[in-house]
Amino acid sequence: MLLVSESLMPELVTTAKEAMQRITQARSSGETIGLIPTMGALHDGHLSLVQAAKAECLFTVATIFVNPTQFGPDEDLDQYPRTLEQDMEALAAHDVDFVFSPNASEVYPSGFSTYVDPPDVAKPLEGEYRPGHFRGVCTVVLKLFNLVPADIAYFGEKDYQQLLVIRHMARDLNLPIEIRPCATVREPDGLAMSSRNAYLSDDERRQALALSDSLALANDLVANGETRSASILDEMKRVFKKAGIENIDYIALADPDTLQDVPAITQPTQALVAAHVGNTRLIDNRRIG
Amino acid sequence: MLLVSESLMPELVTTAKEAMQRITQARSSGETIGLIPTMGALHDGHLSLVQAAKAECLFTVATIFVNPTQFGPDEDLDQYPRTLEQDMEALAAHDVDFVFSPNASEVYPSGFSTYVDPPDVAKPLEGEYRPGHFRGVCTVVLKLFNLVPADIAYFGEKDYQQLLVIRHMARDLNLPIEIRPCATVREPDGLAMSSRNAYLSDDERRQALALSDSLALANDLVANGETRSASILDEMKRVFKKAGIENIDYIALADPDTLQDVPAITQPTQALVAAHVGNTRLIDNRRIG
Repeated sequence: MLLVSESLMPELVTTAKEAMQRITQARSSGETIGLIPTMGALHDGHLSLVQAAKAECLFTVATIFVNPTQFGPDEDLDQYPRTLEQDMEALAAHDVDFVFSPNASEVYPSGFSTYVDPPDVAKPLEGEYRPGHFRGVCTVVLKLFNLVPADIAYFGEKDYQQLLVIRHMARDLNLPIEIRPCATVREPDGLAMSSRNAYLSDDERRQALALSDSLALANDLVANGETRSASILDEMKRVFKKAGIENIDYIALADPDTLQDVPAITQPTQALVAAHVGNTRLIDNRRIG
Repeated sequence: MLLVSESLMPELVTTAKEAMQRITQARSSGETIGLIPTMGALHDGHLSLVQAAKAECLFTVATIFVNPTQFGPDEDLDQYPRTLEQDMEALAAHDVDFVFSPNASEVYPSGFSTYVDPPDVAKPLEGEYRPGHFRGVCTVVLKLFNLVPADIAYFGEKDYQQLLVIRHMARDLNLPIEIRPCATVREPDGLAMSSRNAYLSDDERRQALALSDSLALANDLVANGETRSASILDEMKRVFKKAGIENIDYIALADPDTLQDVPAITQPTQALVAAHVGNTRLIDNRRIG
């Protein structure tokens, strides 16, 4: 374990007022401000966002907030891993300027009732299987953009639809911030990094490879000349069956901008999968074609 | 007619980019920025907002945009008065720094599909009679706040529910802007100033006094000891009948923060009325008790 002395820890800010004071000061110094919104339980995927921010911003802020409004009633809000101490150490190692981790009552005060009604691109895929999810995501992301006004915000391509939803929201609501996508970070065997991987048993961890394997297969099929979506989807489904995963939410080949299904791979296409491995719901995606 | 020379006219800005450049410059000079969002057809009510802004802000911006998304399909979007030249002259006389009047395609680009789902206080009264109205209002106001980031935004108490809705939205979404209410400006005989008064015939103009008269009566009744809402509402209704106005949307005595009906006037209460005078829908309100 890497020992980090207290003095190297980024400052932990929990109130909107303090966060705004620090941002205002950084802004008045003319520093470009980078924002990395997270729900904590940080892994190398998150840290790659921090690295991208550090590379282009003089002042970087990570937020850690497990946002209740983006979890459905039967989802894993209570179980979601909370590892603030380790998260702070990881962020210290990457030298972020401060960490904003507000209480739920600070973010959702009594009487709160205004939401963002998300853009059309929120409707398919995750939108069908997690009703209300993107409403919660858009609302909290807009709130964080206002609480910690930054020049550039960093989001992982691992949550591809979320990235699109936030980009469309930013365009539609004229948000004065750039949305910067960062490539998915994977384990050596291909599994996309996710805080939810911590839920997996050893057996489930092996099964979970079906997600990235099916995407790799789709990529190979297209590289070898297959263009018919139906055939590719069948082959992908077979990967899940073989791994013993029965509970698939979706396997999709979609337009990368609209997420509408495409019947044939005639141009770059987003392959997206979501499935339950044991009790853990995982998602992954990859650009193919 | 007051002649205003070209050189005194405020600059008319129509693109988001130009508006942001001017705001960024004002901000870097440390000037407090005041925003007055309007739909044009300016009257003394609007100009009182400009005066309030000039009194506390070094830099003031008025916006003129007839927002299509806040009009219902059977409402007066096409007929709404557009008087840009006179509006510019009036704003020149009040020395605003620039006027932002974007095209609809700049505000609602192709693919636009993200809205603000307004707070609970949008549900009664106007919310019942103009479904979708506050969704459009909140969305465009949030967009204007992002397009022309200001420190303080000025709204008239004439549109009392709108003021509450915007205040709740600003609180709920952590918008970094102060919402400043300004008192309703009235004609000498009491009629609240409204761009829609221009629609009224001479007869209708006389009938329209029922709105402000009914509010004055409610105020008098309470001053004389009446506390029962039902009795006060009956008396108010009689004022409309007497004026020959049959088409009343609502007459309400409500909590000033929640707009829920109150059965008795035991503390300061908002009296609100909405009625159709001929083909013109008018609203008014007043604090009583």
